Amino acid sequence: MSKRIVTIGRQFGSGGRQIGQLVANKLGVKCYDRTLIDLTAKASGFDAKTLEKYDEKSNSKLLVPISIGHYANFSSVNFEYTLNDKIFFIQSDIIKKIAEKESAVIVGRCANYVLSQRSDVLRVYIYADIEERVKTVAERHYIDEKSAAQLITKTDRKRASYYKFYTGSAWGSPSDYDLMIDSALGYDKIADIIVAATK
Amino acid sequence: MSKRIVTIGRQFGSGGRQIGQLVANKLGVKCYDRTLIDLTAKASGFDAKTLEKYDEKSNSKLLVPISIGHYANFSSVNFEYTLNDKIFFIQSDIIKKIAEKESAVIVGRCANYVLSQRSDVLRVYIYADIEERVKTVAERHYIDEKSAAQLITKTDRKRASYYKFYTGSAWGSPSDYDLMIDSALGYDKIADIIVAATK
Repeated sequence: MSKRIVTIGRQFGSGGRQIGQLVANKLGVKCYDRTLIDLTAKASGFDAKTLEKYDEKSNSKLLVPISIGHYANFSSVNFEYTLNDKIFFIQSDIIKKIAEKESAVIVGRCANYVLSQRSDVLRVYIYADIEERVKTVAERHYIDEKSAAQLITKTDRKRASYYKFYTGSAWGSPSDYDLMIDSALGYDKIADIIVAATK
Repeated sequence: MSKRIVTIGRQFGSGGRQIGQLVANKLGVKCYDRTLIDLTAKASGFDAKTLEKYDEKSNSKLLVPISIGHYANFSSVNFEYTLNDKIFFIQSDIIKKIAEKESAVIVGRCANYVLSQRSDVLRVYIYADIEERVKTVAERHYIDEKSAAQLITKTDRKRASYYKFYTGSAWGSPSDYDLMIDSALGYDKIADIIVAATK
């Protein structure tokens, strides 16, 4: 059976999302990225704005799962923990249903881990030099390079914490991926490589 | 300029050497692996047996570069350090000369680092699940799986220490490679992917 679900983990500013879209175009399938937020909103009843706030984040202060009773006096902390969790589980369910019914590219959201029981998944990780990422993020967000570097550090830290919290693995650890690519190789060439790897 | 030097770092038992040979065949170029030992023997006057003993090893007790004078009273330790070093520099010189004169695949020996000043190098790292590597090494060396696991741990530790000592980087760190591939994708498919990435 040829692999037709492609999951793409990506460092912030590495171009992973763009590469995911290119792969989807070349394969003639959909690319699920931030679109997953809208699908999660529909399925959960939460509004998309709230979901965006919690997207790909864990509550870093609560890295060890705790019982609700233990933090009963800290209802806001407790609320954050359970909301993150709820969103993760609803989104995971949506990802599983997508993989069940269609070929697709799924960017982020621990999709490699969520779909780890499937044998038709190619798990890709896109990374890049920090200098390249700073340039990309500065251009994309119309900010100076110093602010871009800060945004990268902050976003990567959140993604790593989110990944660690829900999968138990270190983010970007080779054992969680089939293929890891430096985006300096060129987005289009990388998309071709990923498509070749799905055959 | 199309990339035509391919360096392959590889976990022990991952099949990196075999994949390197396949890539060389597909590109119609030479694959330098253990052959580098013979070339180093010729260039250095050391015999190949001695070189094999020191191949891809650093003196793990001396991870911080030291002046010869400092360890003058420990001549055997000092000898090991300088011999490892000598071999590394001679081998690096050979690798640089190969890259200067011909397209080639070079397996191991920190070639990605040695050739880091060149723009025509594709730096690949091959890894695999420990379970797969144990099976491969047990079959290859006619040993049981327990011994294979021990050999893998020992060899990987030596390679990591050698890499760290001479490059200053952690072995297998994404920033040192353009492409990192789990060999479970299939040797031949991986060789095709690497060839595509050189274009």
